[in-house]
Amino acid sequence: MSGKFIVVEGLEGAGKSSVMSLITAILTASGKTVQQTREPGGTPMAEAIRDCVKQNWQETVAEQTELMLMYAARVQLLTNRIQPALKRGEWVVGDRHDLSSQAYQGGGRGIDREIMAQLKAVALKGFSPDLTLLLDVDPVVGLERARGRGELDRIEMAGLAFFERTRARYLELAGQDDRIVVINAMQSMEEVHADVKRCIKEFIA
Amino acid sequence: MSGKFIVVEGLEGAGKSSVMSLITAILTASGKTVQQTREPGGTPMAEAIRDCVKQNWQETVAEQTELMLMYAARVQLLTNRIQPALKRGEWVVGDRHDLSSQAYQGGGRGIDREIMAQLKAVALKGFSPDLTLLLDVDPVVGLERARGRGELDRIEMAGLAFFERTRARYLELAGQDDRIVVINAMQSMEEVHADVKRCIKEFIA
Repeated sequence: MSGKFIVVEGLEGAGKSSVMSLITAILTASGKTVQQTREPGGTPMAEAIRDCVKQNWQETVAEQTELMLMYAARVQLLTNRIQPALKRGEWVVGDRHDLSSQAYQGGGRGIDREIMAQLKAVALKGFSPDLTLLLDVDPVVGLERARGRGELDRIEMAGLAFFERTRARYLELAGQDDRIVVINAMQSMEEVHADVKRCIKEFIA
Repeated sequence: MSGKFIVVEGLEGAGKSSVMSLITAILTASGKTVQQTREPGGTPMAEAIRDCVKQNWQETVAEQTELMLMYAARVQLLTNRIQPALKRGEWVVGDRHDLSSQAYQGGGRGIDREIMAQLKAVALKGFSPDLTLLLDVDPVVGLERARGRGELDRIEMAGLAFFERTRARYLELAGQDDRIVVINAMQSMEEVHADVKRCIKEFIA
């Protein structure tokens, strides 16, 4: 028996954190052993890579540098935590995974689709989540919520047009993959949580 | 007018540092403005990535993680220092570049050639050094010299067979590229420096 990998995706301010908690609670209540992960990060080395990506460097960060760091952290997390946990039959709930790179670096930054596909293939060797919940939010709404929480990091300061492109790529890719479910995250938190609950219960059953 | 990028490659203990200094001195004496770089590293962000790679983590470092980090640092250095310097007409002398990844990760760790080629293409977009000096040394000799300098880092502790494979890939790739010159680094330092001097003077002329 092997576990399942469920990923929560979405723009800043989409409400990922509370949905992560909700999913973990539902799975735990149904008797699963659950681990949470976040990307980039999730192992000591991957967290150090995260610090590299998130820091406000006094130099321009090349697009490909950011992309390679994201994949470095992802491979490390996948190899050392996600895959071993799944093999033990545990369930893993991930705050972001590959779809974030496709949306942010591919859609937002405009890195070539062919390059994105090659890197994904090289790094992940065909691995993919069993279920992804995409919390869809208008960036104007999302960034307003994120600002309420305090500082924005380098990626979050990239500007509205960047997030519009990121959202568009998210939705495009969701339309091509049955295992990605889009949740309207502009509803009230109660409504969002009701949708998530329904989706997870269906998935378990 | 544009500058040239000269790279010094070789196993631990091959004598790269003194050859770096020698080349820089020759170029400076002939009126060039010269910058030295090292990989991984060479910009604040790339140095932080270097720390990530070199640290003795209490977790297994996945091969692909190491590879992605090497390329992340390389792209950052290339974009922010090497290419701008070349455009200004400066010469750059590099302590390692892409050939190290091909030899260590490709040859030593045995990462698939196709993957190595794809990553190189994605990251470097066809950029390559104008001249590479490969300081060829038997790993038994090289590691003995490196041990004399103190601690060995994680990569240096990988064992003799690893370095034999790395050396073999170095020599194989040198045989396929006219711009890579093999120097016998098991000679005395005087003889090595005489070979390097001859090679650089020819290249300038």
